[in-house]
Amino acid sequence: MYLPDHFKEVDPDQIASVIAGAPLACVVANTSDGLIANHVPLLFDKSGDLIGHFALANDMHRIVDDGQEILAIFRGVDGYISPNSYPSKQEHHRHVPTWNYQIVHVYGAISFQHDARSKRAAIGLLTRDQERRVNGVNAWRMADAPTDYMLEMLDKIVAFRIKVTKTVAKSKLSQNRDIHDFDGAVQALKLRGNEALAGRMLAKR
Amino acid sequence: MYLPDHFKEVDPDQIASVIAGAPLACVVANTSDGLIANHVPLLFDKSGDLIGHFALANDMHRIVDDGQEILAIFRGVDGYISPNSYPSKQEHHRHVPTWNYQIVHVYGAISFQHDARSKRAAIGLLTRDQERRVNGVNAWRMADAPTDYMLEMLDKIVAFRIKVTKTVAKSKLSQNRDIHDFDGAVQALKLRGNEALAGRMLAKR
Repeated sequence: MYLPDHFKEVDPDQIASVIAGAPLACVVANTSDGLIANHVPLLFDKSGDLIGHFALANDMHRIVDDGQEILAIFRGVDGYISPNSYPSKQEHHRHVPTWNYQIVHVYGAISFQHDARSKRAAIGLLTRDQERRVNGVNAWRMADAPTDYMLEMLDKIVAFRIKVTKTVAKSKLSQNRDIHDFDGAVQALKLRGNEALAGRMLAKR
Repeated sequence: MYLPDHFKEVDPDQIASVIAGAPLACVVANTSDGLIANHVPLLFDKSGDLIGHFALANDMHRIVDDGQEILAIFRGVDGYISPNSYPSKQEHHRHVPTWNYQIVHVYGAISFQHDARSKRAAIGLLTRDQERRVNGVNAWRMADAPTDYMLEMLDKIVAFRIKVTKTVAKSKLSQNRDIHDFDGAVQALKLRGNEALAGRMLAKR
């Protein structure tokens, strides 16, 4: 992606928090059928690979070869920034609109796993993470479901892992503005209810 | 993308509202440098083409040929759905977690425009739309900025349009659940503060 130095994100904590905050990734592959994208939640396992699963009925594992490069896109919060929100606009009017956002692009080699152990591991990783956030001590576990049902469900998916070759992240958060214009943009977002983006910007103040 | 019939979105109003609600698109191209994605806001003009602009410093207009197929991805709201949120879970426990979301994929042929008129049109379209939402009668206009400054800014961008060849949209909103489980999922999202996704689901009830 286009990545001017002042928007380049290299802080591992920022990158990790964009992914943890929005694990629904857009997985893009170039195939004989053209560009194909699927949205699925992904998480890193301990080895540093991205782990996920597709429905078995999803053609990805048939039209994408093991080892092929894919792009997994994680998208943080975003919002429109009006020139009106900059105090210095009233002085010189030399501002144009822009859009703020945080994006993480992870490139890597994908491989598919059809064995039950990999599939359980893929589901377990994601489920534990989300259930802990959503239900805490009442977290749903695979063991809650009858064995025959879980086996039936596992038969309907394919696990995959992405061995990461490159991570490119962008935090376009008005860091290139003077502090008064920056604060004005944050304030305007808060007034519009976009606290999420305002919060990400303030972390860069 | 993988698109089971029950999640296929064909309602033009739903598709338009996903795009209008989140115009920051992910524009993906396959290039000699591999897969490249850039996030930019896009809107339809009256001809039905998607209109946007890149920074001139963004290599897209140099490495992507006029007429090449690109994929523009618009992403609505999303959220994790725990099996715990289904009332019928307590009866038979035959549920697994899932993720709900709305996605619109627009395929088309991209072309780049370097003339001032196209660039002004691209910026004008987007600016009018966003400023009306954000600032209403106090909307910022290009005419607010000094002429020399606007010309300088226009020199730094390239406009593009995407002639749409195919639109594929997915509303994965628990439509395949029975009404009690559906309502349980909506309620759980509301309790977690994800009113946005709950609202999109209720539109499908």
